[in-house]
Amino acid sequence: MKKSIGAKTIVYPTPVFIVGTYDKDGKPDVMAAAWGGIACSQPPCVSISLQKQRYTLENIYEREAFTINIPSEDHVKEADYFGIVSGRDADKFSDSGLTPVKSEIVDAPYVQEFPLILECKLVHKVDLGMHIQITGEIMDVKVEENAADTNGIPDINKIKPFLFDPAGMSYYGVGKNIGRAFNIGNKIKK
Amino acid sequence: MKKSIGAKTIVYPTPVFIVGTYDKDGKPDVMAAAWGGIACSQPPCVSISLQKQRYTLENIYEREAFTINIPSEDHVKEADYFGIVSGRDADKFSDSGLTPVKSEIVDAPYVQEFPLILECKLVHKVDLGMHIQITGEIMDVKVEENAADTNGIPDINKIKPFLFDPAGMSYYGVGKNIGRAFNIGNKIKK
Repeated sequence: MKKSIGAKTIVYPTPVFIVGTYDKDGKPDVMAAAWGGIACSQPPCVSISLQKQRYTLENIYEREAFTINIPSEDHVKEADYFGIVSGRDADKFSDSGLTPVKSEIVDAPYVQEFPLILECKLVHKVDLGMHIQITGEIMDVKVEENAADTNGIPDINKIKPFLFDPAGMSYYGVGKNIGRAFNIGNKIKK
Repeated sequence: MKKSIGAKTIVYPTPVFIVGTYDKDGKPDVMAAAWGGIACSQPPCVSISLQKQRYTLENIYEREAFTINIPSEDHVKEADYFGIVSGRDADKFSDSGLTPVKSEIVDAPYVQEFPLILECKLVHKVDLGMHIQITGEIMDVKVEENAADTNGIPDINKIKPFLFDPAGMSYYGVGKNIGRAFNIGNKIKK
């Protein structure tokens, strides 16, 4: 039996995207965004939604660029911190001890210590209410060598990403492989 | 050291949203969408991106409504099947043995056996290239009673959602709780 709990923003899994930008003075900043996901395969695009007053939003408008940095479990504390404090009030790279690296492809910094980076160019924005949905074209993906398989492809077990539970307000690691995509469903085909 | 792997649609976690719609003749259909996420807190909105030729896209245009159904690990095979076959060629509810239930709130069906349901009304669409990004306002969320905590809030450990690995093309369960959100990062605050 299902119970109605009202109109809430609860889905699983919800990501923890660390969004990297430069402000107008060139200070690198990072924030945590849980609202977002891949938006298009060709051109490859990713969307993130940011509250209108966010410092990061100003930065994206200014530079028309951002990075999405996927943290591993080892940096869950830093990722959480990036969602607690505003870049208006703190130097989050300095506070966390993590290292900003200037992307060679877009006008935004990425986090050196994080295993997977998407470098994005602003292509679309829409005002949905409390949040502005920002869509970036993914210009390149960079993966840490020790987080890739022998073909250079990201290996989820080495990246050790985590997810956000918006109902229980906690972070969870990734569990076991439970099946091959576009494969295990074939058993049902009539 | 980071290596460039080109412009690819790889992020973690990536969801497996099962999108429920009625077609113009009233046949209930479901498809799997991995591109999407929450898009706004107020009004609560969720986005999904669908290839232009998708049957589900026609249905959403026709009825201006859809559901997002979060499957548990127990139904990973069915969820995968929903991403393999088109509703033009098959009755996916009948093939999978799952049960369509008409939403009382929007003009779309949901999957009775899945633990968490979002009922959505189309509010925005944008053509990004290969995919159309569809945004729905979440009108209600329904949770299976045995997948909620004592306050009726969804419990991730009872829902047992899973995620999609777009690099390794596999599904993964949810692992351990690794920390409280908006809490564990406070240690870093200066």
